Amino acid sequence: MRTIDWADGRIIAIDQTRLPDTLTTLRIDTIDELIDAIKRLAIRGAPALGVAGALGVALLARRGGDVRSDVRADAARLRAARPTAVNLAWGVDRVLAVVDDGPDAALAEALFILNEDIRRNRELGFRGAQWLAERIGHPVNVQTHCNAGGLACVEWGTALGIVRALWETDGLGHVYVDETRPLLQGARLTAWELAQQGIPHTVVVDSAGASVIARGLADAVVVGADRIAANGDVVNKIGTYPLALAAARAGIPFVVAAPESTIDLATPDGAHVEIEIRDPAEIVGEGKTNALNYAFDVTPVDLVTAIITDERIIHGKPLG
Amino acid sequence: MRTIDWADGRIIAIDQTRLPDTLTTLRIDTIDELIDAIKRLAIRGAPALGVAGALGVALLARRGGDVRSDVRADAARLRAARPTAVNLAWGVDRVLAVVDDGPDAALAEALFILNEDIRRNRELGFRGAQWLAERIGHPVNVQTHCNAGGLACVEWGTALGIVRALWETDGLGHVYVDETRPLLQGARLTAWELAQQGIPHTVVVDSAGASVIARGLADAVVVGADRIAANGDVVNKIGTYPLALAAARAGIPFVVAAPESTIDLATPDGAHVEIEIRDPAEIVGEGKTNALNYAFDVTPVDLVTAIITDERIIHGKPLG
Repeated sequence: MRTIDWADGRIIAIDQTRLPDTLTTLRIDTIDELIDAIKRLAIRGAPALGVAGALGVALLARRGGDVRSDVRADAARLRAARPTAVNLAWGVDRVLAVVDDGPDAALAEALFILNEDIRRNRELGFRGAQWLAERIGHPVNVQTHCNAGGLACVEWGTALGIVRALWETDGLGHVYVDETRPLLQGARLTAWELAQQGIPHTVVVDSAGASVIARGLADAVVVGADRIAANGDVVNKIGTYPLALAAARAGIPFVVAAPESTIDLATPDGAHVEIEIRDPAEIVGEGKTNALNYAFDVTPVDLVTAIITDERIIHGKPLG
Repeated sequence: MRTIDWADGRIIAIDQTRLPDTLTTLRIDTIDELIDAIKRLAIRGAPALGVAGALGVALLARRGGDVRSDVRADAARLRAARPTAVNLAWGVDRVLAVVDDGPDAALAEALFILNEDIRRNRELGFRGAQWLAERIGHPVNVQTHCNAGGLACVEWGTALGIVRALWETDGLGHVYVDETRPLLQGARLTAWELAQQGIPHTVVVDSAGASVIARGLADAVVVGADRIAANGDVVNKIGTYPLALAAARAGIPFVVAAPESTIDLATPDGAHVEIEIRDPAEIVGEGKTNALNYAFDVTPVDLVTAIITDERIIHGKPLG
């Protein structure tokens, strides 16, 4: 089952706020419904947001009437629904570039992006699995964070795509999953995906990831990314940076899995990325405000052992 | 109000599982009630556990009949109620050493320990505040973890005792409080204590502490300790180690606040400390088992800038 898709003239997507209790599908007919789904993380994950951006513009292009300026205004709202992951803007812009060719051209471009996401993530996954298997030399125990799985993409996954490729080639040991506060994408989504695939895994609180690494239970940290700056700094879900510090201290690889579309050469470094700050209520509950809810953090390039993309393996600067 | 005390021939203690919603007091008449309260963290915090161990043996000594062997057997059970914090065993052993002198001597020793805890933590707090004020040179912004406040002691606190001493001497900026999963001692207990004292504070998810530090929002990390090994390794609530890594990377002091009774010269280093592993249900919910619930982690001595005790400031090994 695809996380996000196009059917019967609308976007359909798994409602990720309902997992793991309920597997339900959203039917999205309007741009406002799509923006709402993105803001409340019913649709989330950098590659999936890229596809959502693309399909959203395709949806806009199919509305009747004299809508060209409306399309661009609505696309701008969609583009800004979440600020940190570059893929959302990338997907919007890719389809906007062909929107003057008509709604069929826009939809064709969006569906091309969707299908490319599947193909590219598989390539990424097996490339990363091969790199880790060669480097580690025995079944690889992985520490991951948040959800960079099929639910973060159309299917297959980026970081979990590497895990799955290791599993399918008998190269996987055990997966340690940070629960990923405040919205528990690790405990809810990653643990659910791994259970679906029969992959052995254990959930830990986020602050225990560093201990899992220090105790030698993990051979590598493998995470996704929401934006990779031109200097190689990696922006990903809050909690990624302390794992990178722990990996460096333990001398194990810190591996980032992301499609090329996550690399943003227009942003010089992590300090120039807008870090989304979400509602304090996600942490301290409704009506309370005494919390600071960073959604992402910055891992400096010197802590990143390798960035695995659908095209290459990067050590250091993406333009290296 | 004291966190733990002796009144009317029994132990009374704030039920810390009910805070911040309800401030209620437990009345503890038997050793089994005390052990239960300790295991479920109704009484918690290394210094408070030391006092609980002392008062527990005093309680045992007051039972009628030929109880000497029972006292020692029950004291051994109390001593083992939680394995990581050395203070519990220390408090038990201190009062056991005088139990042959009769119940009044045992109670006197326990109450001496209780009153010493208050005095020593105040000394520790003002010593730490002075050290930080001299080192930082402007109102100090503090990142802390878990609860090393009055609720972890009889009153006043260790890490939060330093914060409070800074506050009372106009030397405090802002306090960032990790929520401290899975039982949220930061969001529930530390935030409640700071609010009671009118101290400005903000709660973050545990994995955001490293970002608070990297962004320059905190000038120092100040935490408590459950056991300090002879080589200076610090065992404290899970999540302390990644804060130490982040502090080292940012070049800010990582300060441990603990009474001398937390130093365990019989344990050579952190690798020799038994790390309590608690019920997976605290993380993934009742009936689920796919979680690993380390309650503590080890911060290696080279990441510790200073250990502030009630008697001295230690850099490196406690026996230096």
